[in-house]
Amino acid sequence: MPPKNKVVVTMRLPESAQRLLEADKSPTEYSQHNAEQPCSRLWLLNEIKGAHGVLLGVYDKVDEELLDAAGDQLKVISTFSVGTDHVDRELLKQRNIRLGYTPTCLTDSVADISVMLVLMAQRRARESIARVTAGQWPQMPWHPSLMIGPDIRGSTVAFLGFGRIAQATLKRLIGFGIKDARYLTSKPGQPVQEDHFGLIRDAAVPVQPVKDLKELASCGDVVIVSCALTPSTFHIVNASFFAEMKKTAVLVNIARGPVVDTDALVDALQQEQIFGAGLDVIEGEPEIAKGHPILRQERCVLLPHIGSATIKTREQMAEECVKNLWAGLNGDAMVNEASL
Amino acid sequence: MPPKNKVVVTMRLPESAQRLLEADKSPTEYSQHNAEQPCSRLWLLNEIKGAHGVLLGVYDKVDEELLDAAGDQLKVISTFSVGTDHVDRELLKQRNIRLGYTPTCLTDSVADISVMLVLMAQRRARESIARVTAGQWPQMPWHPSLMIGPDIRGSTVAFLGFGRIAQATLKRLIGFGIKDARYLTSKPGQPVQEDHFGLIRDAAVPVQPVKDLKELASCGDVVIVSCALTPSTFHIVNASFFAEMKKTAVLVNIARGPVVDTDALVDALQQEQIFGAGLDVIEGEPEIAKGHPILRQERCVLLPHIGSATIKTREQMAEECVKNLWAGLNGDAMVNEASL
Repeated sequence: MPPKNKVVVTMRLPESAQRLLEADKSPTEYSQHNAEQPCSRLWLLNEIKGAHGVLLGVYDKVDEELLDAAGDQLKVISTFSVGTDHVDRELLKQRNIRLGYTPTCLTDSVADISVMLVLMAQRRARESIARVTAGQWPQMPWHPSLMIGPDIRGSTVAFLGFGRIAQATLKRLIGFGIKDARYLTSKPGQPVQEDHFGLIRDAAVPVQPVKDLKELASCGDVVIVSCALTPSTFHIVNASFFAEMKKTAVLVNIARGPVVDTDALVDALQQEQIFGAGLDVIEGEPEIAKGHPILRQERCVLLPHIGSATIKTREQMAEECVKNLWAGLNGDAMVNEASL
Repeated sequence: MPPKNKVVVTMRLPESAQRLLEADKSPTEYSQHNAEQPCSRLWLLNEIKGAHGVLLGVYDKVDEELLDAAGDQLKVISTFSVGTDHVDRELLKQRNIRLGYTPTCLTDSVADISVMLVLMAQRRARESIARVTAGQWPQMPWHPSLMIGPDIRGSTVAFLGFGRIAQATLKRLIGFGIKDARYLTSKPGQPVQEDHFGLIRDAAVPVQPVKDLKELASCGDVVIVSCALTPSTFHIVNASFFAEMKKTAVLVNIARGPVVDTDALVDALQQEQIFGAGLDVIEGEPEIAKGHPILRQERCVLLPHIGSATIKTREQMAEECVKNLWAGLNGDAMVNEASL
């Protein structure tokens, strides 16, 4: 009889994934925080003692404290996310703990949100809805310049980071008549390795790397932040970046909050250095309380990190997480394993 | 020397169009309501006396009263819109008055808004923004089902009316991985005559006519209202229509408000017969005061009729309106003339 595994799950899972979790026949002790509210840090630190596998989310920090609390038997962390910046990967490597994640199945949902944010920032959706909802439409009668914004047609779209989600976003934007796309990766000026959807090969519009951050900031009518958060991308979009952007340009962030310096963004919006912004993520989320300066910027749309929040995507992410967890425990191949 | 023309313009025009208006060298008397506030009906009834041409917008009703006030010399109405439901076309025909409009240059801008509204209705953008703006994000921490909505990928998109704007919307949606498209026109079951962007010929997804309204309502994961407002389309989307729709479907209206029965829409949202709605237009606009029942529906995004509100589109619309006006006065060919 194999030794009994202990598994910790920090969240309630969609039904299909929960069934998959419970279908496992091996002797296992479960500890699941089966609630809509997230578990506390204390709960996790307690429950993880003696665990062999943990399924957790982006707000559960995986650091030395947590790994020490778990103990040496811990074999696998399975995170419900494409980003792994909440995980100390170096430490996992040292301790020989495997990391599962979900990089592929949320591509479409996040790319959809990315396009939605581009359009909302350009077309002043937040201002429009706020005024109509406040009953002000009768006092804002029609005239040719009412609520006008820049056109997506004919625009240059600049991607900071050009991985799968960025390319899926570009794939959607081509139908809107954009002029071209530029991108900057960790290898400036070099063509990207992976052409996930054949966009570069088939070239419905020109797609070219730029040589540096300054060129990226200044060329874009739309700038989309779609890179991983690492020490070298922290606050890479800052006051100098905004100073290079066009006054009619919009900034969209669907990556991780800390890539953008929020204070600098507030200033850029306030001083009309840029036209608008659309954010699915922000530094310090979810602790964005009333009175946060970004909330006063009417030209900034801020969503509560719902990029992957579609019914099908969340089901698929959860199922993959469970599969990654079992694979980690059993020494099998994961659906997607991060190389540490 | 030709007789002096009198021209009435009910709005302030973008600069390029204003220059075009003033560049005309023929002897002309101008009366322009050059303000952001719209002209009053009384102003228009007074100024139109003796006019040969009028440039006006969707909120300026062209009826018997107005034409009688103008007098027999009136030659041309140039409307700043694609829709002409504010104009009594039969009466213009009887009186031999030409009608210019702008059916082509706003296609892209309106199709962009159409896609934006589809995504916003599916992805709960209004609810999300409202909560974040109210400072509630800290109380709505992440869990796998937070703010989830239906997927655009794999969906059937149903168009009520399948003209240029609807087809431009479809062109954009193909990049999002939709499954197929269905449409209903004034000739049910028959293939549409004009394939504006080669979407039917090239068929990246199947595009088929449906036989009746019931089939249209029931097949769509997304239903887009994109037909002209006529006596036969008034309230064509009503309680029976909503009763046929899927619970996970969204309704988008980028056409004219009265095509949709607002009371029935409020009921459908209230009773969760449909998932959400996105409206750029609504019956009775712009008189949507605080307390209007649609404003209480968090799953309904309502925009203040900004479909064509981009900088370039509004400039182009205004220039075409001026050209249509001069063509009407001089007996020349218009950029776009409505056949009466």
